[in-house]
Amino acid sequence: MTPVAASADLDVRQHNYSAGPGALPPEVVEEVRNELPVYPGLGASIMEVSHRSPEYTAIHQRAGARMKSLLGMGDDWHVLFLQGGASMQFHQVPLNFLPEGGVADYLDTGAWSAKAVKEAEVVGRMRGATVRVIASGKDGNYSAIPDASSWDLSPNAAYLHVTSNNTIFGTQLAYEPDVDVPLVCDVSSDFLSRPMDIDRYGLIYAGAQKNIGPAGVTAVLVKDAFLQTRQPDLPTILDYGTHAAKLFNTPPVFAIYIVDKVLGWIERNGGLAGMVERNAAKSDRLYGALDATEFYRPTVELGSRSSMNVCFRLPSEDLEAQFIAQAKGEGLRANTHVTCI
Amino acid sequence: MTPVAASADLDVRQHNYSAGPGALPPEVVEEVRNELPVYPGLGASIMEVSHRSPEYTAIHQRAGARMKSLLGMGDDWHVLFLQGGASMQFHQVPLNFLPEGGVADYLDTGAWSAKAVKEAEVVGRMRGATVRVIASGKDGNYSAIPDASSWDLSPNAAYLHVTSNNTIFGTQLAYEPDVDVPLVCDVSSDFLSRPMDIDRYGLIYAGAQKNIGPAGVTAVLVKDAFLQTRQPDLPTILDYGTHAAKLFNTPPVFAIYIVDKVLGWIERNGGLAGMVERNAAKSDRLYGALDATEFYRPTVELGSRSSMNVCFRLPSEDLEAQFIAQAKGEGLRANTHVTCI
Repeated sequence: MTPVAASADLDVRQHNYSAGPGALPPEVVEEVRNELPVYPGLGASIMEVSHRSPEYTAIHQRAGARMKSLLGMGDDWHVLFLQGGASMQFHQVPLNFLPEGGVADYLDTGAWSAKAVKEAEVVGRMRGATVRVIASGKDGNYSAIPDASSWDLSPNAAYLHVTSNNTIFGTQLAYEPDVDVPLVCDVSSDFLSRPMDIDRYGLIYAGAQKNIGPAGVTAVLVKDAFLQTRQPDLPTILDYGTHAAKLFNTPPVFAIYIVDKVLGWIERNGGLAGMVERNAAKSDRLYGALDATEFYRPTVELGSRSSMNVCFRLPSEDLEAQFIAQAKGEGLRANTHVTCI
Repeated sequence: MTPVAASADLDVRQHNYSAGPGALPPEVVEEVRNELPVYPGLGASIMEVSHRSPEYTAIHQRAGARMKSLLGMGDDWHVLFLQGGASMQFHQVPLNFLPEGGVADYLDTGAWSAKAVKEAEVVGRMRGATVRVIASGKDGNYSAIPDASSWDLSPNAAYLHVTSNNTIFGTQLAYEPDVDVPLVCDVSSDFLSRPMDIDRYGLIYAGAQKNIGPAGVTAVLVKDAFLQTRQPDLPTILDYGTHAAKLFNTPPVFAIYIVDKVLGWIERNGGLAGMVERNAAKSDRLYGALDATEFYRPTVELGSRSSMNVCFRLPSEDLEAQFIAQAKGEGLRANTHVTCI
């Protein structure tokens, strides 16, 4: 274990609240260090050998198997390790699944949802297809997830796209939507923080850097039946079918190697039930403290509060600046502009 | 310096001939190890902090500045660190630069060129545009680069796409093409191995994993005048203009951090002139030994031989298997299927 600094000694590990890229388990970082400059029995580090070598292949396959096991996925799911983050998925999802003249539904719960809508519209213009926002939290500054009873669903949508957690606004879907079309879910900011009823989904995706590894790899999980509904004549690299069929091109080896270690850490620490317990213990305590006074001002309505990132304000911007400076002095590391913890 | 094993002790570093992901300078791997679990003065490793932090921003900007400096590029060039490797560039280049009803020229010098052609054709079908192969080495099993005098250039092409080095076939363009349209060059397998007359180019790209870092980042260098010729209404993530304007989304932080270190290593070791000298010393010696007997059989015609990877056969497949086994026994590490060194 790496020691955590009690005060702001920046040459030892601090309490790290960076929203993304975020902190990794200290044991994982130590293991990575110990496997440099040579991965045991390999004669080189893992980032310096072929992605088709038996040693890397074992890591790649184990990472996929661990992800499926943690989420209780059967053989009808494909695990893909792609690149480009959620921003690439905003394009790739409609490119694969929004048909000529078709409709896709989107739930707008924050800045990232809005970007997903914008990119779907680019594909929609190309295909004469419609992108419908079925409900939006924008008018309320995204301080709550629009209630499911207000969603104006299209009966014939190719899919419904939702964002499970919204880092910037500190909101999180408290339930898994119950709709008649395949769900596509951006789980970038709460992936593997809780179990999922995966039968409801056609595809879920997550940039690794918030919860399961370093920046540079995107986990995409796609159900085979949904995969088969994709459009023809796609660019090979953007066709999910390419990657479901085989390891097509050089993957981001080192990032996936670290993801595998983080997944192993989750397994050893109670799986997703353990994640729920630890997250609830931390966020309940924090919301409790915030709600106990008038001084702290949580920004999110009850029922939409995230267990991943807790947003609050102070009575003035001056006091907020003091709060951040004092936190830094105590060895709490956060992003340059702190609005959430 | 890491010791290199004289025999096959796989827990020390071996001579590593992996074509990609390939070996990194031992000093770079040591530095990476020394900056775990804490990057000096940061309280966390570099992969666990925001990509907008001052510490990472300094690394990102330095890597870009080093690349421009090594290649002698002026302010009219943008350095982008993207994801998806050359395979993504095969799509992204025509998506940005092949206009409706237009023409793009491609030189076919091997498996990777052929993939670039195939992906350009997908965009071509979408836009009613033409992809022309101006010359191909395919009939000669790609054992030579087609002579420039045979190229059937289109007068009005949006660009000419060439591949500077072909790993699988061991060929390399011995000269930089002199044409009237912007050159787009896949330099994935010989990037920064020699100087370039960059005024001839509109865009060059390289997956990092062969010459400048680990897998997971793609260097794309684009001249501003060429960038301005791109098509309208592109997906945001695939529009080169998005990335030229600002750091749009989370980059592959750790891979770029290592690229920066490798570029620093090149600077300290004579820049690109030093690279040419070291590569020529090694490949001249190897070709000399191969040509000195009838036993070894280099596969590439004189004038097209690569200084990056030297392809040769032995009199029989049995002898080849013995050669590979003996090389492994001597601590020479290579890909599973060795055809080139």
